[in-house]
Amino acid sequence: MIEVKIMYDLVIIGSGPAGLSAAIYASRAGLNAVVLEKAGVSGGQVLTTYEVDNYPALPGINGFDLGMKMKEHADKLGAKFVDASVLAIKPGADGEAHTVVCDGESYEAKGIIIATGAHHANLEVPGEAEFQGMGVSYCATCDGAFFRKKDVAVVGGGDVALEDAIFLARICNKVYLIHRRDEFRANKALQDGLKQYDNIELVLSSTVEEIKGNGAVETLSVKNKVTGEVKDLAVSGIFVAVGIVPDSDVFKDVVDTNEKGYILAGEDGRTSVKRIYAAGDVRSKQLRQIVTAVADGANAVTSFSEDILN
Amino acid sequence: MIEVKIMYDLVIIGSGPAGLSAAIYASRAGLNAVVLEKAGVSGGQVLTTYEVDNYPALPGINGFDLGMKMKEHADKLGAKFVDASVLAIKPGADGEAHTVVCDGESYEAKGIIIATGAHHANLEVPGEAEFQGMGVSYCATCDGAFFRKKDVAVVGGGDVALEDAIFLARICNKVYLIHRRDEFRANKALQDGLKQYDNIELVLSSTVEEIKGNGAVETLSVKNKVTGEVKDLAVSGIFVAVGIVPDSDVFKDVVDTNEKGYILAGEDGRTSVKRIYAAGDVRSKQLRQIVTAVADGANAVTSFSEDILN
Repeated sequence: MIEVKIMYDLVIIGSGPAGLSAAIYASRAGLNAVVLEKAGVSGGQVLTTYEVDNYPALPGINGFDLGMKMKEHADKLGAKFVDASVLAIKPGADGEAHTVVCDGESYEAKGIIIATGAHHANLEVPGEAEFQGMGVSYCATCDGAFFRKKDVAVVGGGDVALEDAIFLARICNKVYLIHRRDEFRANKALQDGLKQYDNIELVLSSTVEEIKGNGAVETLSVKNKVTGEVKDLAVSGIFVAVGIVPDSDVFKDVVDTNEKGYILAGEDGRTSVKRIYAAGDVRSKQLRQIVTAVADGANAVTSFSEDILN
Repeated sequence: MIEVKIMYDLVIIGSGPAGLSAAIYASRAGLNAVVLEKAGVSGGQVLTTYEVDNYPALPGINGFDLGMKMKEHADKLGAKFVDASVLAIKPGADGEAHTVVCDGESYEAKGIIIATGAHHANLEVPGEAEFQGMGVSYCATCDGAFFRKKDVAVVGGGDVALEDAIFLARICNKVYLIHRRDEFRANKALQDGLKQYDNIELVLSSTVEEIKGNGAVETLSVKNKVTGEVKDLAVSGIFVAVGIVPDSDVFKDVVDTNEKGYILAGEDGRTSVKRIYAAGDVRSKQLRQIVTAVADGANAVTSFSEDILN
């Protein structure tokens, strides 16, 4: 039996907004592309966002719905999707095809778009791993409803942390907002928003030392960095919102990354390796949003279309 | 009577996708912004696009509807819009407010986002200006229906020209596609699409010399660049699709532009003048699409939010 290997124009790794936009642009450009997604469902971080209110034309859309609509759009244009987890990429010699190695199968392509996104950072404190799913959560909009009328804590000082605190304040009895600094870096609208909820208590200049419980979260040990005082807060849930980490580990030996692990690439998506592109949250850039992710997907496909002519 | 001048955070000039995205991001960031639009209606070039099939999550949406949805989104978030035509911008000294001069009124702001977009280029041949609206059109999707079952011509070789030819082939009796080169730069899918219509006749390596008629377009003089032969084509309409020109004239003395007139700015939108940003089609960049315009609007607001802290 002879195995006939398909030579794709493009392998798109990841199917959040960047990967889906790339799939849409590749389909419309008549390119033979395949999208690899390991999560079993497309949409990326958008899927676990309760409400998206900054994707122009779709005010206040539920994140899951937005992810599904983008996937359906790509499907309608004939994009090909495969459930696969990428283990490695092997760049071809100059002008030769690249190889994308997955568990079970490998794919050959003239170009690769890395659109693997990013994930939530951990606190790295005792109890965090132990109680994950038993009170420790990274997504208030996904899990907040499990803590109705209970006391919870949010950790972080950026937009997501304040959004989470406000979201939870509507559901829960009390929300502690714990932040290591004495001011928030979140936008002003969110800081003003905080003030409307008298069940949000700010715990500033403080870090979480330990998460404790018996089968499920019961208390947090919090240390005030100024006074040195450590106190226990009785909570049933803790929502960690301390930033994101790029999902670039598999590619770090192949393409250049910055000190935070983001793949170095400009607006055109071109990385340090020819015909390998980065799009979306995994790329080094100013602003990680759905609007910039969909732009990246389109730019990466456009760069590839130019590069294969040269 | 004492005139109290409002000091805005941001004046956003233009309300196509880039300006509307900037308005959405500015509103959500709690910035005091005003959007100036001279056309009397928001949406920009999208408004006159028959079908938009590459804005992820909204497959095959009518351009006018998409423009309206984006405007409604900005309205919902409380964005302020004013009908005004900008005559000049006067940059403030370092740290001082900029002034945007309109006919009748002027606006002071800490920052300006130029999102004025671009418009269609002209053929610059005899008869073109004379017959504009009388057979000469720059928008097949707007005006095609006026030429049902008639013979028409499209001029150009890019995506828009081929899209126009295909659109018109469904409506008109015959479509001449006139292009100065012997091959198209449009994408492959569109070139394949052309072949499905036997009422499209290619007129390659040819230029339009003159548009003639009596009150309305009747014939085109077309010259073959290889043979030198000039022939007349009997048509009722001619659709000009030979590229776009940035709407940057008002700003050229203030911010740096490139040889084509696009405002020089990177992905972050920052121009050669502090706290003046370019977003959307007016900016120097690889790819002018709705997805990249909405990314630009968000990036420009983000850059401004950073710049006023410094």
